[in-house]
Amino acid sequence: DPPAKPARLGLCAACHGEAGMARIPGAPNLAGQKLDYLREALRQYRDGRRDIPVMRAATGPLTDAELDQLAEWYSAQTPSRAAP
Amino acid sequence: DPPAKPARLGLCAACHGEAGMARIPGAPNLAGQKLDYLREALRQYRDGRRDIPVMRAATGPLTDAELDQLAEWYSAQTPSRAAP
Repeated sequence: DPPAKPARLGLCAACHGEAGMARIPGAPNLAGQKLDYLREALRQYRDGRRDIPVMRAATGPLTDAELDQLAEWYSAQTPSRAAP
Repeated sequence: DPPAKPARLGLCAACHGEAGMARIPGAPNLAGQKLDYLREALRQYRDGRRDIPVMRAATGPLTDAELDQLAEWYSAQTPSRAAP
């Protein structure tokens, strides 16, 4: 069954949408993205290897379990055919 | 009409697939990704702000036009519901 909606989702939804379709220019779609890729990217935002201030701020306080929960949520979403 | 298949696509397809569905662990799906996000990410791989050696090698020799052509190609692909 699909993963439960993570408590922290609101933090991400502002730019990425709850269903993983980007809402602002520059933000990527996350819906249906590879789980391992999302988990690794989130860790790199948190530890600064990916040096994107807004993502560092968003992920800084999150635990590994919370990062993985968000990665599982977005990976489980079905990409909708949004405008490129 | 959909963009023509870029000459350089083979370089990317090994890991990302011709249609933008990742073929290897750790590589992201690119199909239907936001065009502006892909264009910016490719530039950051090329100039090293995103420090991923394989992507630096792949994008290093490419012109802006070639990067944009690849971004347009992948952004125009329809994501298929692959396993997360």
